[in-house]
Amino acid sequence: MADKSEKTKARLPRGFADRSADDIRAVEKMMATIRSVYELYGFEPVDQPLIEYTDALGKFLPDQDRPNEGVFSFQDDDDQWLSLRYDLTAPTARFVAENFEKLPKPYRSYRSGWVFRNEKPGPGRFRQFMQFDADTIGTPGVAADAEMAMMMADVMEALGIKRGDYVIRVNNRKVLDGVLEAIGLGGDENSGRRLTVLRAIDKLDKLGPEGVKLLLGPGRWDGGKEGEGDFAKGAGLNDVQAEAVLLATAKNEQARQDSNVGANAIYQEGVSELSTIEALVRAAGYGEDRIAMDRSVVRGLEYYTGPVFEAELLAEIPNEDGQIVRFGSVGGGGRYDGLVSRFRGEPVPATGFSIGVSRLMTALKNLGKLDMSDVIAPVVVLVMDRDIESLGRYQKMVSELRAAGIRSEMYLGGAGMKAQLKYADRRGSPVAIIQGGDERAKGELQIKDLIEGARMSAEISDNAEWRAARPAQVTVAEGELVGEVRKILAAQAEERARGK
Amino acid sequence: MADKSEKTKARLPRGFADRSADDIRAVEKMMATIRSVYELYGFEPVDQPLIEYTDALGKFLPDQDRPNEGVFSFQDDDDQWLSLRYDLTAPTARFVAENFEKLPKPYRSYRSGWVFRNEKPGPGRFRQFMQFDADTIGTPGVAADAEMAMMMADVMEALGIKRGDYVIRVNNRKVLDGVLEAIGLGGDENSGRRLTVLRAIDKLDKLGPEGVKLLLGPGRWDGGKEGEGDFAKGAGLNDVQAEAVLLATAKNEQARQDSNVGANAIYQEGVSELSTIEALVRAAGYGEDRIAMDRSVVRGLEYYTGPVFEAELLAEIPNEDGQIVRFGSVGGGGRYDGLVSRFRGEPVPATGFSIGVSRLMTALKNLGKLDMSDVIAPVVVLVMDRDIESLGRYQKMVSELRAAGIRSEMYLGGAGMKAQLKYADRRGSPVAIIQGGDERAKGELQIKDLIEGARMSAEISDNAEWRAARPAQVTVAEGELVGEVRKILAAQAEERARGK
Repeated sequence: MADKSEKTKARLPRGFADRSADDIRAVEKMMATIRSVYELYGFEPVDQPLIEYTDALGKFLPDQDRPNEGVFSFQDDDDQWLSLRYDLTAPTARFVAENFEKLPKPYRSYRSGWVFRNEKPGPGRFRQFMQFDADTIGTPGVAADAEMAMMMADVMEALGIKRGDYVIRVNNRKVLDGVLEAIGLGGDENSGRRLTVLRAIDKLDKLGPEGVKLLLGPGRWDGGKEGEGDFAKGAGLNDVQAEAVLLATAKNEQARQDSNVGANAIYQEGVSELSTIEALVRAAGYGEDRIAMDRSVVRGLEYYTGPVFEAELLAEIPNEDGQIVRFGSVGGGGRYDGLVSRFRGEPVPATGFSIGVSRLMTALKNLGKLDMSDVIAPVVVLVMDRDIESLGRYQKMVSELRAAGIRSEMYLGGAGMKAQLKYADRRGSPVAIIQGGDERAKGELQIKDLIEGARMSAEISDNAEWRAARPAQVTVAEGELVGEVRKILAAQAEERARGK
Repeated sequence: MADKSEKTKARLPRGFADRSADDIRAVEKMMATIRSVYELYGFEPVDQPLIEYTDALGKFLPDQDRPNEGVFSFQDDDDQWLSLRYDLTAPTARFVAENFEKLPKPYRSYRSGWVFRNEKPGPGRFRQFMQFDADTIGTPGVAADAEMAMMMADVMEALGIKRGDYVIRVNNRKVLDGVLEAIGLGGDENSGRRLTVLRAIDKLDKLGPEGVKLLLGPGRWDGGKEGEGDFAKGAGLNDVQAEAVLLATAKNEQARQDSNVGANAIYQEGVSELSTIEALVRAAGYGEDRIAMDRSVVRGLEYYTGPVFEAELLAEIPNEDGQIVRFGSVGGGGRYDGLVSRFRGEPVPATGFSIGVSRLMTALKNLGKLDMSDVIAPVVVLVMDRDIESLGRYQKMVSELRAAGIRSEMYLGGAGMKAQLKYADRRGSPVAIIQGGDERAKGELQIKDLIEGARMSAEISDNAEWRAARPAQVTVAEGELVGEVRKILAAQAEERARGK
């Protein structure tokens, strides 16, 4: 098996990542915080498998023109197609539709887990990532949407993001739908063009109104100039139509009033729902600095039917190129009244919100708000003699430490004392235990304080300081092992608390 | 979309499961316990994606004769084959091989996550399930294997499984390898037959020695009689060979001594390693009631090269048919010195253990040791008037409760008071808040104690009891909402603690 000529190459597939101990621990703490807010709002955990029938997931991904339509799919041995889920909403819709009679209505639930996109990977763009969603299913009232927005605001603050450093932006898809109908883009036959419009508007932050206008009209070259990069086909709107769309999605209220768009029923319904949401969140004490009504939010997914929301980090953070930029969206969602109905043949209103866990973690890291690991590395018991009897004795020391709740391990490698201390150093171990033949004969052992040891060799310059410092090494009787290690760990904890 | 004629059927794919709130919470607590033991032993979390290159996973599944060889696979757009991982060991081997220079050696790590098998689903047999593994990589010494066995024993007790209700059984693959070599089954050309032997021995508990002997020899009919069920091809051993294998894997020590198998080097090495493990675990205070040496343990996976272990629950538990049976294995593992070497072209010794999380949860449930949910359901604020102003007022009450850390929600459905109280009942809510027009005019609200209310209507028969009971409903000033709800929740908690 160890023949070099035929060895397999160890490599991560493109677009996938391994996670380190620090990342895993930080994500776990972050998710516990999010969970506690969702629970406070009365939501219950539930989760679905990572694989669903392809037809149950539906086709709602932005990237449908790529092979395999953006999802990883495979055929079961009964010839049915299965896919890895691309979000948590589609499986939730399937679950609720399948168990509708058994669930309380409205049904508030949350779930977290991995989702997969069969997309071209890029920097910071992964094909497996984690989402953390909350959904309320079974109520048409926008009070449910208002609750989503408030919950997201509470999540941001629970994670330590200061008021003013984030905002939850809310809009209503019906506003844009009304405008599209008014300019002749209503009806099933125009659904493709409407989607192109949505995705164009969704790029307002990136491309500005000029770039978006090209996408609404004839199309746009990726590189910004004719012939540069790929050509993205536009929605084919004329200037008047494009202008109406841009006005309806302008942040600037005055601009909207000057236009004559959207006198129709669907537009009015959208506007009225928005003001209900605004009234509800203000009554609950959420000001504009936390939840803002913003007509430029549309979300790029086809399936939203009403209110849409986006959690945006306003904090300015260095990007990969060192430029200071707004971090942008860390989550979003909206009302998707059609998704459960697909299965039920009756209207089942629903609304939800999704947090991009990895993206949010990156943001928190940059903001210095990420709760990094405070786990203490293990005490290492060195192996000085390798006969079975000695190994048994070292093993017993480790067992005693563990029984006392002290994280510890026996060195399992093959090298000498220097290599073992180097290993302990690499692990960041607080303490090393040493018992050679001499100590054993006297029933003693040595305990090395590795933190103090490192500090002493780095800092201490004169003899007075040396004498005042904690000893970096003590020799104690075998029976005092646990007590003495406890004492050293406590001293180290105190020093950390003093904010070294 | 809601047209009945073309609606999609909502159905779980075969062999997959949704998880309930209780299950999710119970698994999380169980995993936190396992994690704390792994951490105590000095292991660090790390995790890999769910998708790997197919060649990196290798072909080590028992079920290789099925289409797709037991794994879910699909081709990437650069034509390379990807697969969903079928266990956590193969991705760990890939990760360690890829990052070998950066990792401390020996490298102790743990990880949990979903794994997938493209197998025929059956009762209790899922195609997605969760494993929780620990591995030590980079040390050939069996002290690492001894540590695995001790850690598993500690995990069992940390989960509340009493001493005597479980045992960690340890054997060494080299013992059987020695016998196989002695009876002429050594060499690469016999690897297929050796695997058949392994899998036959792995079924000792299920089939007994007679059934296993058929699998070692000519083969066996699934149904037990000729022509019944499927025919499983045997390893083709003659009677003397089969007898030698059965003797070498006999639990009975006398039977082994009477045989003349295994005088060769590999057999002796296996026996000697086993006695080192035994000495180490006994020195650390683990008796035979916790860690037992048992020659009948072989494990069905080809890649083990040395010590193998199995965590077995001895408790007798009713099975699906109501029969009282030993629950059996909830985890296992062993030394797999070849798996990392596949990538490195140099020997990289490794050993590990895997816990079947779902199976262990089933066992704990049956033993009454599963820490079921103790999460309190949310307080429900009823919606008596539906104008925006009233909704805002209810929303404010909920916000106040949440700000005080009290799990609560505004009713979001559309129905009258009776339906709302039914909803609160269905959720198991402890308290309902009611404010109609009359109360509002007086600046008051009603608080219903739903637990006490249910108890009173069920139990209380005479007037004296009625007067002594807590009132099931109080009317308080708006400003007293949070304080009064707190009081009721505290009284309910006290009653629960008194063991209602």
